[in-house]
Amino acid sequence: MALIVQKYGGTSVGDTERMKNVARRCIAAQKAGNDVVVVVSAMSGETNRLLKLVAQITDRPSEREQDVVVATGEQVSIGLVAMAIQAQGGLATSFLGHQVQIVTDSIFSKARIKRIDADKIVEALKQKHIVVVAGFQGQDEQGNVTTLGRGGSDTTAVALAAALKADACEIYTDVDGVYTTDPNVCPSARKLERISYEEMLDLASVGAKVLQIRSVEFAMKYKVPLWVKSSFTDDPGTLVCEEDKSMENVVVSGIAYDKNEAKLAISGVPDVPGVAARIFGALDAQNIVVDLIVQTASKEGKTDLSFTVGKTDLVKAKEVVERVAREVNAGGVETDGDVAKVSIVGVGMRNHSGVAAKMFQILASEGINIQLISTSEIKVSCLIQSKYTELAVRALHTAFGLDKAPAAS
Amino acid sequence: MALIVQKYGGTSVGDTERMKNVARRCIAAQKAGNDVVVVVSAMSGETNRLLKLVAQITDRPSEREQDVVVATGEQVSIGLVAMAIQAQGGLATSFLGHQVQIVTDSIFSKARIKRIDADKIVEALKQKHIVVVAGFQGQDEQGNVTTLGRGGSDTTAVALAAALKADACEIYTDVDGVYTTDPNVCPSARKLERISYEEMLDLASVGAKVLQIRSVEFAMKYKVPLWVKSSFTDDPGTLVCEEDKSMENVVVSGIAYDKNEAKLAISGVPDVPGVAARIFGALDAQNIVVDLIVQTASKEGKTDLSFTVGKTDLVKAKEVVERVAREVNAGGVETDGDVAKVSIVGVGMRNHSGVAAKMFQILASEGINIQLISTSEIKVSCLIQSKYTELAVRALHTAFGLDKAPAAS
Repeated sequence: MALIVQKYGGTSVGDTERMKNVARRCIAAQKAGNDVVVVVSAMSGETNRLLKLVAQITDRPSEREQDVVVATGEQVSIGLVAMAIQAQGGLATSFLGHQVQIVTDSIFSKARIKRIDADKIVEALKQKHIVVVAGFQGQDEQGNVTTLGRGGSDTTAVALAAALKADACEIYTDVDGVYTTDPNVCPSARKLERISYEEMLDLASVGAKVLQIRSVEFAMKYKVPLWVKSSFTDDPGTLVCEEDKSMENVVVSGIAYDKNEAKLAISGVPDVPGVAARIFGALDAQNIVVDLIVQTASKEGKTDLSFTVGKTDLVKAKEVVERVAREVNAGGVETDGDVAKVSIVGVGMRNHSGVAAKMFQILASEGINIQLISTSEIKVSCLIQSKYTELAVRALHTAFGLDKAPAAS
Repeated sequence: MALIVQKYGGTSVGDTERMKNVARRCIAAQKAGNDVVVVVSAMSGETNRLLKLVAQITDRPSEREQDVVVATGEQVSIGLVAMAIQAQGGLATSFLGHQVQIVTDSIFSKARIKRIDADKIVEALKQKHIVVVAGFQGQDEQGNVTTLGRGGSDTTAVALAAALKADACEIYTDVDGVYTTDPNVCPSARKLERISYEEMLDLASVGAKVLQIRSVEFAMKYKVPLWVKSSFTDDPGTLVCEEDKSMENVVVSGIAYDKNEAKLAISGVPDVPGVAARIFGALDAQNIVVDLIVQTASKEGKTDLSFTVGKTDLVKAKEVVERVAREVNAGGVETDGDVAKVSIVGVGMRNHSGVAAKMFQILASEGINIQLISTSEIKVSCLIQSKYTELAVRALHTAFGLDKAPAAS
């Protein structure tokens, strides 16, 4: 008998009819001989509705109190899904983050899971219950409600799968798998049958919206086989798993883009040791994640520093950076929220040279200027003007041969 | 320095503007030199919205799971109110039922508070925080979410006031005090300055919607002075307190009505010991509260038994009673959801005779038939056809001299 953790996203539980559909799937998985744990998100639109209420109260909410408010979305979902399973003759029990003991750190709104005490789940599974767990939420050591950030329900599911040593973790969403790129942008995008954790990590981290990055990290760390499937079809979906030989034949597996970044540029930064550390240390102290960083060559003891942060952090980041810039006698700070990051990803890059150069050449031939560049072993990212995003994605998809399925190896 | 517990109902936190108003009142109470604990309900309409979702899933929800769903209403409110206080420069921390350790029994949807461990509140008050606590919810010994039933936030407030030995508990609502009867039904209804716990208990228990009955029981038991006030005015409201001499001069203090009852009648019940116990025992086992009970004189070893239950319990009660009726060889079971209970209440009744007879005579003179009667030391209740409710209330209000204020004693 296998133990399966299923996770259903906001659209999959978007209304009560869809919840009944989720209940049917959970019961079917149990009848097929599995122990079933199901993690659910808030009904689609609910988290935004709650954030809108918060915005009506204040534009500077306490993150502790905001977590108290937004955690309710998943709470509603688990109660309703458990009832739907019961109404179809199944046994079900719901658990909140604090009841299961999903213990996190205290970084509200972006908390990380520290440990899970799954005893209550194991006990309920023994009683043949389908266990319905609230995604996205946890509790810190002091008993405060915490949330894991957008898409955190994926992380809840994978973390539970790891803690329970589940045989598989199935992420149900409104798409039927992981695509070479966003089909809304590029009609020739194709569904991938398999993809490595590393590639998925880079696709997720640069904006492929299918899986939250931390959930893939967790899956990779604990070697949890991760399926991305649609809750509306019986399509097998995409398997995210360890890298194998066949994957290396493909240079680029996917193209991702991210419009949720914003650029900050500080001019005239004194080129002395410790200045960059002060700037990024101050941002880190505010829990602002910095992505791409580029520093120009030093000229007369000064340098220009550009970097990107999440668009929602832009206001806060600008305040911090302006303060530090004054302290270190740097020049002005400019910001640009009208940028996008386009990335190519593939484990095959490790064995192929000239991939980055080919990307720059393709963008140049479309007349697209590159503002910042970042490369890693299996990824090349370029920051461009936002309006060129779709053009760039389509050009790269075709030029790297993703329009057609690779020959079987 | 005094410690005040304030409770704001659903209309008082009905939207974010009203929450800001609540925040202003809390801060004002703190600035006046008090420690302030504030209990809030769900935003008006929210609990019904959640129950509607439940109804879309199933008409027989698990009460455990329903509590998980409906408890979210108060959770949203506390986060938003705490933020509103902070946005106005105050210090605030919100607590959920399980965080404060409001421990209840496990009777879902109607749980009773067993104990409160207020350490976290005391600690936050020491830090000069305004403490915002979710009404209506608690946690049982096994860590399950429980709710206290409609109006349960009043009980949370009074129980906290008792546990914290607060100097006063102020219940803020959309009316400015306790009235002699419902002003919507009877335009000559008057606001009372003071009323005894016992009278309030009877007015609340028979349907005056101002306070939940258990909150008054708690207040009486722990002698918590209870103010009923409007959150929209600075009117002093009504003080619910211990009985004093002056209250006895008034025979009837108020008229209440309740349209949320339904009648069940069992004919041909064998008039042998133990039968009534079986019937009401079976109802009790389902947590169905029975109110008025009338048994006719025995005829040929058989009797007819009529009683009332809450309208929402009618379907469940009918099933139970039909089953037991078959087991004890009773006749058929008839139900009537189209009834209302009208009651007169007053501590002065203890010293005045003929009050019940006068009530029956007034109803008779209006052509209203009385179906069931129940009397206590300070109350007389009559079950009548629902359509006569308003007529009965107005006639009794006038006949018992409530249209005019009593002469000062």
